[in-house]
Amino acid sequence: MSRPTLALIGATGAVGTVMRELVSTREDIWGEIRLVASARSAGKVLQVRGEDVVVQALAPEVFDGVDIAIFDVPDEVSAEWVPIAAERGAIAIDKSGTFRMEPDVPLVVPEVNPLDARDRPRNIISTPNCTTLSMMAAIGALHAEYTLKELVVASYQAVSGAGVAGPARLYDEIEALAGDRSVGQAAGDVRKALANKLDADSPFPAPIAFNVVPWAGSYKDGGWASEELKLRNESRKILGIPDLKVSATCVRVPVITTHSLAVHARFEREITVADAHRILEAAPTVVLMDDPANGVWPTPVDVVGTDPTYIGRIRQAVDFPNTLDMFVCGDNLRKGAALNAAEIAELVATEL
Amino acid sequence: MSRPTLALIGATGAVGTVMRELVSTREDIWGEIRLVASARSAGKVLQVRGEDVVVQALAPEVFDGVDIAIFDVPDEVSAEWVPIAAERGAIAIDKSGTFRMEPDVPLVVPEVNPLDARDRPRNIISTPNCTTLSMMAAIGALHAEYTLKELVVASYQAVSGAGVAGPARLYDEIEALAGDRSVGQAAGDVRKALANKLDADSPFPAPIAFNVVPWAGSYKDGGWASEELKLRNESRKILGIPDLKVSATCVRVPVITTHSLAVHARFEREITVADAHRILEAAPTVVLMDDPANGVWPTPVDVVGTDPTYIGRIRQAVDFPNTLDMFVCGDNLRKGAALNAAEIAELVATEL
Repeated sequence: MSRPTLALIGATGAVGTVMRELVSTREDIWGEIRLVASARSAGKVLQVRGEDVVVQALAPEVFDGVDIAIFDVPDEVSAEWVPIAAERGAIAIDKSGTFRMEPDVPLVVPEVNPLDARDRPRNIISTPNCTTLSMMAAIGALHAEYTLKELVVASYQAVSGAGVAGPARLYDEIEALAGDRSVGQAAGDVRKALANKLDADSPFPAPIAFNVVPWAGSYKDGGWASEELKLRNESRKILGIPDLKVSATCVRVPVITTHSLAVHARFEREITVADAHRILEAAPTVVLMDDPANGVWPTPVDVVGTDPTYIGRIRQAVDFPNTLDMFVCGDNLRKGAALNAAEIAELVATEL
Repeated sequence: MSRPTLALIGATGAVGTVMRELVSTREDIWGEIRLVASARSAGKVLQVRGEDVVVQALAPEVFDGVDIAIFDVPDEVSAEWVPIAAERGAIAIDKSGTFRMEPDVPLVVPEVNPLDARDRPRNIISTPNCTTLSMMAAIGALHAEYTLKELVVASYQAVSGAGVAGPARLYDEIEALAGDRSVGQAAGDVRKALANKLDADSPFPAPIAFNVVPWAGSYKDGGWASEELKLRNESRKILGIPDLKVSATCVRVPVITTHSLAVHARFEREITVADAHRILEAAPTVVLMDDPANGVWPTPVDVVGTDPTYIGRIRQAVDFPNTLDMFVCGDNLRKGAALNAAEIAELVATEL
């Protein structure tokens, strides 16, 4: 058959940039690749597979003849345009939160639940939130053999999770504060120094340089941040455990890209560190870095820009039965976003 | 009676500097205040209570006539010198890890277990690790009414927890990297940029700018970091719960001063957010900042340099009975170190 046509919607954003790099460097199974963005970006010329491609404005006609459309756009844009793409015959792979929890839309991580991608009555497949995705390949591998019961997660989320404005703001703040070796030592001094040099317009609700900010997403009932509930609800759906117990606290940290998570995971039966090592060493998209006596564990600056999910600091919880404590890192723009969508597209393309 | 004589051992370090500020600004109950440090720092002139004081070299004679000696020195220095101070008649308040878990040495947080300070057969009182202390005033208040059963903690620890070399290194790394708006986007690029500009001698086992590092302390059996086991064992002793279940993952973050902790705490009976608010609002050394709908929660840049323990993001865990998720911040040099020692000294001084 002819090679499938791929459309990338939101091609100019942080994730879109990584997506263009991925389709240019992974095995090339695609026929035409269309780049689509808002009217503001239409007409721009961007490179894909070494060739110049003119960005088209989002319109119903751009989906004509498209086999697979990957959407990386805000929730409200997905809500409007994903059904239009699906109606016009494209399989829509959507990175937004809009359809993830709908019962007739599968939520897919190819290493964990690839078969779910086949059951897509609306021709829509969702890809999870970047925080959920940053741990899922590793947690899914452990679950497959030991059956997960509970997750308590604290996140260390990179600024690029907030889009291109996130790194821009952190670089701005670092430049504004660098050279002052007294800053960060008195209450409010970072705020004051930033107010003198930068405008107040930040994607973050507090200074992010020399700080950590315990908030990601929008306000939900009970004091939860939307990102924390996504991690709970999406983990349940991907793993197929409707009664999985999950508590998460999401915290933004001054890291450019790569989300990290401290994970406390209880399983149905006893699991040792050696058991976990055996499973994770065999998991094809997971890299085990777990030799703390020799300083070996993953950190964001060593993970960023790479595809796997990294895991280390695996300990059997002394006081909790059947429980491991772990530290997981994943590039939130790659496996956490563009890569997972590309992998779903490749998975679905094999059926076409 | 005459005012007690106080000796500060380790007066020139990061905590010693805060200690001198505290005894200079809190209610002045002291007679003579002696400053003591290593031979290398002896002869330096430092200010206390607005007066110049010459630093004395550590020697048995410096304890003659001393009522209370506060030690902020490395473990091995405490091991040698704390017993000498106690033998010479001083009550030794020790910030090191050396004596904390010894059964005949009380481990004291004045808000939580003040009476323990009275039972000190060796004339030694230990003050906890800064990570444990950063949450203990708040957790202790909740425990007093609802009885704590389990703690799962992930930390966001400031660089000054590693001593004066910690902030110096973070400022160095920030200065070396500031201005390069591509750094932090490819695996190893931060390491490479730092290797070109700074020497390899860091108090941290990985880059700390644009990074988080899942390691604090020394290697212990089972893959644990010493800081994680301290949090477990010290919490049990301070709270008087020998079978408290604790799992902790300790992570260093690029914050100058103020440790933060994501705390998942199970109690003996149901506790609502309103219950927690009532208790924490009444706790004299705790500041409740918990109105997330209006962006109110604590962050390190607003807490640093102040005395209280700050708490926010209090949520009733949806899936876990009797459990709260919370975010706690405390200045690791003040309540986490110097302030707690000063408060113990003041508590003990009232008995003299």
